Amino acid sequence: MHVPVVIIGSGPAGLLLSHLLHVRGIGSIILERKSRDYVEGRIRAGVLEMGTVGLMREVGVDARMNAEGILHDGIYISVEGKRHHIDMKALTGGQTVMIYGQTELTRDLIAARLGHGGEIVFNAENVSLHDVESNQPYVRYLHDGTEQRVTCDYIAACDGYHGVGRQTMPQDKLKTFERVYPFGWLGVLAKAKPVADELIYARHSRGFALCSMRSQTVVRHYVQVPIEDKIEDWSDDRFWHELRLRLGEEDAGLVNEGEVFEKSIAPLRSFVAEPMSHGRLFLAGDAAHIVPPTGAKGLNLAASDVHYLSKALIAKFKDNNDALLAGYGATATARVWKAERFSWWMTSMLHRFGDENSFDGRVRQAELDYVLSSDAGKTMLAENYVGLPY
Amino acid sequence: MHVPVVIIGSGPAGLLLSHLLHVRGIGSIILERKSRDYVEGRIRAGVLEMGTVGLMREVGVDARMNAEGILHDGIYISVEGKRHHIDMKALTGGQTVMIYGQTELTRDLIAARLGHGGEIVFNAENVSLHDVESNQPYVRYLHDGTEQRVTCDYIAACDGYHGVGRQTMPQDKLKTFERVYPFGWLGVLAKAKPVADELIYARHSRGFALCSMRSQTVVRHYVQVPIEDKIEDWSDDRFWHELRLRLGEEDAGLVNEGEVFEKSIAPLRSFVAEPMSHGRLFLAGDAAHIVPPTGAKGLNLAASDVHYLSKALIAKFKDNNDALLAGYGATATARVWKAERFSWWMTSMLHRFGDENSFDGRVRQAELDYVLSSDAGKTMLAENYVGLPY
Repeated sequence: MHVPVVIIGSGPAGLLLSHLLHVRGIGSIILERKSRDYVEGRIRAGVLEMGTVGLMREVGVDARMNAEGILHDGIYISVEGKRHHIDMKALTGGQTVMIYGQTELTRDLIAARLGHGGEIVFNAENVSLHDVESNQPYVRYLHDGTEQRVTCDYIAACDGYHGVGRQTMPQDKLKTFERVYPFGWLGVLAKAKPVADELIYARHSRGFALCSMRSQTVVRHYVQVPIEDKIEDWSDDRFWHELRLRLGEEDAGLVNEGEVFEKSIAPLRSFVAEPMSHGRLFLAGDAAHIVPPTGAKGLNLAASDVHYLSKALIAKFKDNNDALLAGYGATATARVWKAERFSWWMTSMLHRFGDENSFDGRVRQAELDYVLSSDAGKTMLAENYVGLPY
Repeated sequence: MHVPVVIIGSGPAGLLLSHLLHVRGIGSIILERKSRDYVEGRIRAGVLEMGTVGLMREVGVDARMNAEGILHDGIYISVEGKRHHIDMKALTGGQTVMIYGQTELTRDLIAARLGHGGEIVFNAENVSLHDVESNQPYVRYLHDGTEQRVTCDYIAACDGYHGVGRQTMPQDKLKTFERVYPFGWLGVLAKAKPVADELIYARHSRGFALCSMRSQTVVRHYVQVPIEDKIEDWSDDRFWHELRLRLGEEDAGLVNEGEVFEKSIAPLRSFVAEPMSHGRLFLAGDAAHIVPPTGAKGLNLAASDVHYLSKALIAKFKDNNDALLAGYGATATARVWKAERFSWWMTSMLHRFGDENSFDGRVRQAELDYVLSSDAGKTMLAENYVGLPY
């Protein structure tokens, strides 16, 4: 079996890429290690840049998103209980973000891909990538107990941090950059009305909190917790109580409690691998980089990678032009580092690091004070939050 | 002897304060540990914010500054030899900075102060501050071998980092914040034409460089050096060679060599002490805070402290209103931290820290790349460089 592009991973990156190639008549197959149920059940991000929304529209998988997605013109930043508004739409000349869960987006993309006759192999085990430095790489995997082999022109590894894609890169050529933050996020999904009309990012002496939403009836809230904390340490009552404390007296009353149906603790990490390609293997999304969730950039970076990669593959297949493929790593990485910077910056300004009484701690506080006092500072925050141009 | 305000230190902060009080009819005496020749010979900063220029005008000591000072509408930032322009005037709606050496400004202020019959006691040794928690503090010092004692209503310690002012604060109430940078600046004064019409701040893989000027015939240049370097390690030839390398091929040809008449190495440090007052003792300028010179904020912060302090003293003496004096520390400190943040930020983005291949190193590079690519980023840099409003 031969397909032009083998895509590893059926997260948003792999699915979007498959769709973007399909609308230009380029065939692909997606190999996914997990089951469809698992993939469609994963809880992930929920803030889409307009660039990401645009890609969904480009591939025509936008009907439910258009109907159910919620446009947000801004965010709130709460500092020790005092709420400030960042009017992103006004600051950026009309740009906004859309609230639409990654889980929903993934479901839509899978349904549409299969509906168009696309091939997604779920439960593809032991995927391995071969001859990526040659003109005809191939991929081996195990499916239903049978060894499979697909030859292809290009491999796109959209298979996440733990995937085989980055592991296949020559390790002596791979440079990695990492920062681990000394805390985690306790995240809760609950059936309740949102706290406010837009997201609230809260900096508080007790730690960071974020009031987000998935819809008008489902909220997604987070509180910063010590990385050692276990989920058992956090009863629902303790969570709601802590969230109220971090929002401060005035906003605490706006919190609507509801049935908690998902609760988990995730670490925060920044990670970048370079280069993003080797031979005919190309990395996209979490396979090449991780951001802490504070800036809502993870999913959107995966989308921008795939935007660049699809353009490059289309130029090759349609015009036999290699230039964009050769430049993919540099192009994608430049935008990645800007988003890494923004995510690190938002994380730094809003969290408690335990060194609040050091020079660095006070500078982080001064940074937020300055940003909230300056139109240029607020614009800088806003233009990064809505997403830098591709 | 009794004077309303005893001012310790005849740097720009002390001198400006004395003038600002004088024009409102409030008497003061300045006690300076060093000789007049020493004070007038010190080489310091040379970029004035318009707020600082405004204070010089307010006290009528602006004739020579107006004639000889050079207005700059912007700065250049050179990245690996490629020069970018920050048009501060356009970005901030008309604000600029003025090039005028701190040495010249100090001379003007001393001459005018003495010309107006003001008292500056040079060579005042063993200055000590007493009863600052009472309603009538007093100051003792040794002059010409004679013990002197002055009672006063308030003491303004404008006596720098090593001065007696901060040392007199109750040490258990004093909080200090510090960051020491792992490099120094080799600074050179030379009789030569400036490299360009405005200052050039250069980020280069060999390290930071700054091409500044004092006039159209005297330049002030700096290169980042290891903190262990001795001045003997740096011949004039080596300095000019290194400066050219850091400006890159294109700009290297613009460097005009000339007689080097001052050369020194200074460490870079961030330092803040809080609170800035105790009883009737008030700190201003370097006595309370140090910034690395990258943002040209040291002298200007001293000026803004003195602006707040003069307003507060005038409100007390003229209207018997204590409120501004009570709020001085908080008001001054808020602006101090913003300038500390900016100076740290400029220093971080432009210097080589030796960890360029770590996440932090790459984020610093991404920060500068982003700032130079964004109007909001450039505006943020510009509005801080010209000086945040008082």
